[in-house]
Amino acid sequence: MMSTAHRVPSASALTLADLEALDRGDRLRALHDAFTAPDALVYLGSNSLGPLPRETPARLQEVVARQWGQDLLRGWTAHDWIGAPHRVGDKIARIIGAGQGEVAVADSTSVNLFKLLTAACRLQPGRSVILSEPGNFPNDLYVAQGLRAMSDGRIQLRLVSADQIETAIDERVAVLLLTHVHYKTSAVHDMARITERAHRQGALTLWDLSHSAGAVPVNLDAAQVDFAVGCGYKYLCGGPGAPAYLFVAQRHQAATVSPITGWLGHAQPFDFVDDYAPAAGIGRFLAGTHPILGIAALEVGIDLMLQADAQARVDKSRALTDLFITLVESRCAGLGLQLGSPREAATRGSHVAFRHDQAYAVMQALIARGVIGDFRAPDLMRFGFAPLYNSYTDSWHAAEALREVLQTAVWDRPEFRQRRAVT
Amino acid sequence: MMSTAHRVPSASALTLADLEALDRGDRLRALHDAFTAPDALVYLGSNSLGPLPRETPARLQEVVARQWGQDLLRGWTAHDWIGAPHRVGDKIARIIGAGQGEVAVADSTSVNLFKLLTAACRLQPGRSVILSEPGNFPNDLYVAQGLRAMSDGRIQLRLVSADQIETAIDERVAVLLLTHVHYKTSAVHDMARITERAHRQGALTLWDLSHSAGAVPVNLDAAQVDFAVGCGYKYLCGGPGAPAYLFVAQRHQAATVSPITGWLGHAQPFDFVDDYAPAAGIGRFLAGTHPILGIAALEVGIDLMLQADAQARVDKSRALTDLFITLVESRCAGLGLQLGSPREAATRGSHVAFRHDQAYAVMQALIARGVIGDFRAPDLMRFGFAPLYNSYTDSWHAAEALREVLQTAVWDRPEFRQRRAVT
Repeated sequence: MMSTAHRVPSASALTLADLEALDRGDRLRALHDAFTAPDALVYLGSNSLGPLPRETPARLQEVVARQWGQDLLRGWTAHDWIGAPHRVGDKIARIIGAGQGEVAVADSTSVNLFKLLTAACRLQPGRSVILSEPGNFPNDLYVAQGLRAMSDGRIQLRLVSADQIETAIDERVAVLLLTHVHYKTSAVHDMARITERAHRQGALTLWDLSHSAGAVPVNLDAAQVDFAVGCGYKYLCGGPGAPAYLFVAQRHQAATVSPITGWLGHAQPFDFVDDYAPAAGIGRFLAGTHPILGIAALEVGIDLMLQADAQARVDKSRALTDLFITLVESRCAGLGLQLGSPREAATRGSHVAFRHDQAYAVMQALIARGVIGDFRAPDLMRFGFAPLYNSYTDSWHAAEALREVLQTAVWDRPEFRQRRAVT
Repeated sequence: MMSTAHRVPSASALTLADLEALDRGDRLRALHDAFTAPDALVYLGSNSLGPLPRETPARLQEVVARQWGQDLLRGWTAHDWIGAPHRVGDKIARIIGAGQGEVAVADSTSVNLFKLLTAACRLQPGRSVILSEPGNFPNDLYVAQGLRAMSDGRIQLRLVSADQIETAIDERVAVLLLTHVHYKTSAVHDMARITERAHRQGALTLWDLSHSAGAVPVNLDAAQVDFAVGCGYKYLCGGPGAPAYLFVAQRHQAATVSPITGWLGHAQPFDFVDDYAPAAGIGRFLAGTHPILGIAALEVGIDLMLQADAQARVDKSRALTDLFITLVESRCAGLGLQLGSPREAATRGSHVAFRHDQAYAVMQALIARGVIGDFRAPDLMRFGFAPLYNSYTDSWHAAEALREVLQTAVWDRPEFRQRRAVT
């Protein structure tokens, strides 16, 4: 057995036994068994939807059958449903390097983006530009475009390519809106350097952490980030459509008000007065009644994430993705694949993208063999590695399946080539 | 056994046996057993949080353990997670008199209000006033106030008392924002007449149906309503913080755009293009990834509601609340109670409010006896009757418990008088 996990032998010498040894030496191995094993051979979709923690069904049963079923409306106090956005927000804060009281669970990533982008623009009355990059996760661009439409032209959206972002930040930029880990390529922005550069020009920053939290190092407070949002259903394993979260740096909370001034963001919601007064802290960014079932499921995933040593998580994510790239490039050489992600692990998220002319059909053929990744038009396959869940042997089996699919050209069958609307 | 349900004998002659007979003759009796019985003696809180359908835990188990746990990201297509907002929205449409394609499940009531109120104001560029009533559910006023703040004074909020609403609608009113059934008093607005009056003045209407859907007759299309929102956790029995829904009349859909332009409101979200283009129909009012667990639980409650004959539901709601008022007023005469709801059933929702100087303590004492209602400051007790769940004998037991609490003044004990922050 190898004494040190995360040390990967060179590609030519690698055997399945080597990877089994790495798995045995994995410090996070115990957490693997905290997840439900799907019927699939290898699940590499945590960048889209994280696996199910074994405890989630029982936790939901408790919340549904006992708390809701027996205690009914008394659950809001008896089980502190009312405090759930803060309780779980504070746990997420520990994953993304934020302080207590800086994070709340709320709404969806889109709605949170709208709230914080609007609020940030209003903190910058003399500035009109939201700066982002083309090919950013479209949702984030759409939300900015909606805000632009609402402003009747006062707010503008400027898109410049990633390598031009830093020089494009000028005195017209109100907010820099970036996704930390790119949803397609997995490329990671240097959050601290870009935030520092933005602040030097008087711009605020809003980071989307959807592909970051639980997957790559994030330290919002160290980077002096102003605002952030993220989803709960990827590496945080909160389930399909899990509630999202938002971060507002402590120093901005008193001056920043949400455009969506719902009752649970009120200073005293249960006084039922006619006039809105924002809650003192991060609570002012809550709006409507929060989803107790969704937060309960999310909390299970967050608690698991907090059981893992943060450095071990990051090390394993990098080792898994390094290994997968090494295996695929050595075994699938000449079969039409091209790495679509950064080669340097420190600048890459926890998924790996490969391009192929027939990426859709190849992914369908992989799925038919039990290797679950996903496809993004026009030519990208994504393979997401969850450091708590995936094993080194997963990389091996996935790379072997990919080799077989490409060598036999099995993807060329009609059933794999036929596109469905949603993938 | 009485041959006709919903015929209530006169107060003086009423016996518990009469009410047991009414229960035996209840056409909706079978649905009572479709809900989990709480440990409480009588649950009268469905105006706040509806009871748990027996099927919900198993449905969630299926969605969580099998769909998420085994099929993972493939659930979006394999189990039509992607279509859930429309599938369940179309079912809600049948409860509120809307057409197919006019309702979607989305976000919270607050967020939906923000979306539709903003969108409605933008349809009325020459008008600046949102008209509502003081004491409307504060959330709705807060959302309007947030929109006013965002508009830098272009949008104004005008509040006039309910009896002045119709005459206050003039050519400055962009949108009339009303809650159909008042959250405190249970008073019902005449939706059709007020909407007709608003249209005659060129105003649009936005109705909050949170206390209406499943409780009182609602026919949005017959009343020519423009926009509506509602929550899923009261009479619809979707669970704590269940997803909400929104209605946009077919005739407005093409011209109306949400301010929160998230990716699932895009015409082709899975093309991942940079530019936003709204979906053709009600789908443009979706924003972020929707909560699959929450929608699954909500759908169980909606399906139960659809099993009940709509007229039987309304008849029973009126009979239950009539009976409760009759019993309380005859048995608690001279004990400091005052009816806080309309006496005429057709102008009342499915909850009854009584005022008492010590309403908080009285409600705590009732809860200690297993009769669960709730308190609204300063002096209101609310008793909500779910026509699918509650029985005629529930009214009897609740009225008897109230009489005992008031006659013995047990509410005067310190443990009942001490206020908690949330009730």
